[in-house]
Amino acid sequence: MYEIALHLDAHGEKTLYEQIYEYLKAEIQKGAIRGGERLPSTRMLASRLEVSRSTVLLAYEQLLSEGYVETAPYRGYFVCQVGELYRLEPAGLEEPEQGRGTGRAYKYDFSPNGVDLEHFPYAVWRKLNREVLQESEKELLRLGDARGEAALRNAIGNYLHQARGVQVHPSRIVIGAGNDYLLMLLSRLLGSEHRIAMESPTYRHAYEVFRGLGYACVTVPMDRQGMDVRALGESGADVAYVMPSHQFPLGTVMPIRRRQELLEWAKERSERYIIEDDYDSEFRYVGKPVPALQGIDGSQKVIYMGTFSKSIAPAIRISYLVLPPMLAEQYERVGRNFSCTVSRTDQKMLQLFMERGYFERHLNRMRALYKSRHDVLLAKLKAVQGVRRVLGERAGVHLLLEFSPDRTEEELVEQAACQGVRVYPLSEYCIGEKPHAPTVLLGYADMGEEQIGDAAELLVRAWN
Amino acid sequence: MYEIALHLDAHGEKTLYEQIYEYLKAEIQKGAIRGGERLPSTRMLASRLEVSRSTVLLAYEQLLSEGYVETAPYRGYFVCQVGELYRLEPAGLEEPEQGRGTGRAYKYDFSPNGVDLEHFPYAVWRKLNREVLQESEKELLRLGDARGEAALRNAIGNYLHQARGVQVHPSRIVIGAGNDYLLMLLSRLLGSEHRIAMESPTYRHAYEVFRGLGYACVTVPMDRQGMDVRALGESGADVAYVMPSHQFPLGTVMPIRRRQELLEWAKERSERYIIEDDYDSEFRYVGKPVPALQGIDGSQKVIYMGTFSKSIAPAIRISYLVLPPMLAEQYERVGRNFSCTVSRTDQKMLQLFMERGYFERHLNRMRALYKSRHDVLLAKLKAVQGVRRVLGERAGVHLLLEFSPDRTEEELVEQAACQGVRVYPLSEYCIGEKPHAPTVLLGYADMGEEQIGDAAELLVRAWN
Repeated sequence: MYEIALHLDAHGEKTLYEQIYEYLKAEIQKGAIRGGERLPSTRMLASRLEVSRSTVLLAYEQLLSEGYVETAPYRGYFVCQVGELYRLEPAGLEEPEQGRGTGRAYKYDFSPNGVDLEHFPYAVWRKLNREVLQESEKELLRLGDARGEAALRNAIGNYLHQARGVQVHPSRIVIGAGNDYLLMLLSRLLGSEHRIAMESPTYRHAYEVFRGLGYACVTVPMDRQGMDVRALGESGADVAYVMPSHQFPLGTVMPIRRRQELLEWAKERSERYIIEDDYDSEFRYVGKPVPALQGIDGSQKVIYMGTFSKSIAPAIRISYLVLPPMLAEQYERVGRNFSCTVSRTDQKMLQLFMERGYFERHLNRMRALYKSRHDVLLAKLKAVQGVRRVLGERAGVHLLLEFSPDRTEEELVEQAACQGVRVYPLSEYCIGEKPHAPTVLLGYADMGEEQIGDAAELLVRAWN
Repeated sequence: MYEIALHLDAHGEKTLYEQIYEYLKAEIQKGAIRGGERLPSTRMLASRLEVSRSTVLLAYEQLLSEGYVETAPYRGYFVCQVGELYRLEPAGLEEPEQGRGTGRAYKYDFSPNGVDLEHFPYAVWRKLNREVLQESEKELLRLGDARGEAALRNAIGNYLHQARGVQVHPSRIVIGAGNDYLLMLLSRLLGSEHRIAMESPTYRHAYEVFRGLGYACVTVPMDRQGMDVRALGESGADVAYVMPSHQFPLGTVMPIRRRQELLEWAKERSERYIIEDDYDSEFRYVGKPVPALQGIDGSQKVIYMGTFSKSIAPAIRISYLVLPPMLAEQYERVGRNFSCTVSRTDQKMLQLFMERGYFERHLNRMRALYKSRHDVLLAKLKAVQGVRRVLGERAGVHLLLEFSPDRTEEELVEQAACQGVRVYPLSEYCIGEKPHAPTVLLGYADMGEEQIGDAAELLVRAWN
């Protein structure tokens, strides 16, 4: 029988039984007590260590439940045959919280992915938050509908109908934590045997996500009306990813005729679908927002995707899909298994935010704000020489400056950087080779009018 | 040229330009104005409708941007060739909010998936919520690290090391909105060319999720030590999904020797992995929690998955993966593209909840509470005749009653139902055929001691 050389620390951090358990476990792990050996009886060890028998029993039971020892009736505890064990390394490594350092320091950053956060309605949001946490506490802690709460889907359905001309029964809306997640979910409904057609330039992040989901992606040329449907037909793709109301980054609005051609293409084969990413249709400065493609889709081929990340804030990780009937059925079969990724508290808050008119008010306010910034930028940039045209200037939160071909994008970006201003070359958004006139993107969502004015003056200095 | 028969309503809900735009759009859509026709000049229409010219211009511009009309310099606006259009149907359909009706009414429900919500620390949660929303507002509205916030990953890493013996650098922790999502993400890292081995009975929802992800699933028999590793080797599976510390639903604890065999199996081939679902290891009533399998994994084959849905509440949709180094690399290549599905506000709240000791306190409180309920239930059930053994009685939040073979599960469930008590047959958790002694599950997380006492008495009446 094994002789125990253990000194208990009655004032230690660990309980006595834990000390016994850990000592024995370590001895077994390092082979000091071999398989088949009998441990001292609980009575014997208790008297030897001057502890109660139940303390020893607790330690033995823990070893028993982890499989280090086994019992034989009336004979006691025996050590199991245990192979050599991997030793746990001390952890304690912490990951530092990262800043958003990009190496180079800029005074102004015209990021096209910015969102204004100064004007987020914090007070309202906090009020709703309090209300939601206070009121219906218990119910909201349970797991909800996999598609998202019915009340929020109703609110989204109403909004989509009124503001975007989208036709939908709320049962075909699926809410999820961000577009990336929803594309992931969608890939489960579509299957991965598809070839996705994307415009170039396009929203590069979506391209990475599709690739990450295992899809083959092809790029299809676009003209001034959007994706070239004849080229799409020849590309072998069966899913087209488009942004008809405001293409990113070019800002192209797909006219009604091209929309119909695209729908005709989708109708030709049962496996074809169109993913309409309606990411920032809310911000249009001339006239009304352009209605969604989904609204004229009689053959139910359009998968509509919208998000609150752009219209409210990136932290509101709530996006939604509007599924055509075929995929809604597929969702019932396959997708329902995946619980909703948005907490019910957040869903409830957004529902109230919409129902009580805060959302509309916020959109109107932001539209006015973004328009002023847009106007300031546009006016200041008039002084830049060598600009051939300005693109995307009626909507969204960025502009494009196309220069005459004697400039290069690298040179334009570098000249701006030398003045402390970050601008973005169009080629960053192109997939594969695509010759185009030298063009830079200027996003203005994240900057105040004064900043924009200062930054634009630096750009004039940089480029003239 | 087209003659316009439009009567404007100056006091209508819609602006004048919207009325003009909608009228013309409808006329074009129904073919009343044909492709190629010229619209009246803005000057002419303005005078005809007695509105300002800019009002007409706005309407024309909107039609232009949607592609219904086009301009020819100095010649005016012409209607585009537009195919027949699908008419938008009036929406206004609302989805009713659903109750949780299951057809049959029960007075008591021993659901094994219940979680106590009475003792959720609402006050603390609200306090943290206020604090988080107040303090660092702006930063938290930006998009964060795809893996989740470093500070929360650090807190989880520390917890896992201390409480679960898990060895991990926080950089290999990935936070996501629920287990279903994380399995979905994991499938992007592993690829779908795997065959998943599951125990039977098992956590059925995980089975549905794996199937939904397109995986082939096989069941592998289990004995009293857990999954049969020899049968696993013969199954052709290359990923084993196990719950070593507390198997659901049987409550089996996998002893150290079996764990080593399982790790040996995984080591044999590079494509093999073990998914360790450590779903409710926190609640163990005898001795300490059993350490995680991941902690003794020297060959880095274990994918560890944990959740706060069981330990705090289902609405805290925060789960995490601990990836082995190979998959962590794969994550950097593929997974990083998918933005984190948990809002930064929620992450920050959970981080503070852990760092300030609330989590530990909550766990201790719940453990004591669940233990009392467990004891009450166990004591009351002693009076039930024909029970051959009680399983899973040292941990978790449910018990299993195995009856002598002259009873059937259907009969036991029906007898309980007649007394208004819902119990769950073990066969519900089996995948495919699996003969076993008649067994019912009784979950007690969601019921107070008094309720448990009353319900158990009804069961005694039902079954004796």
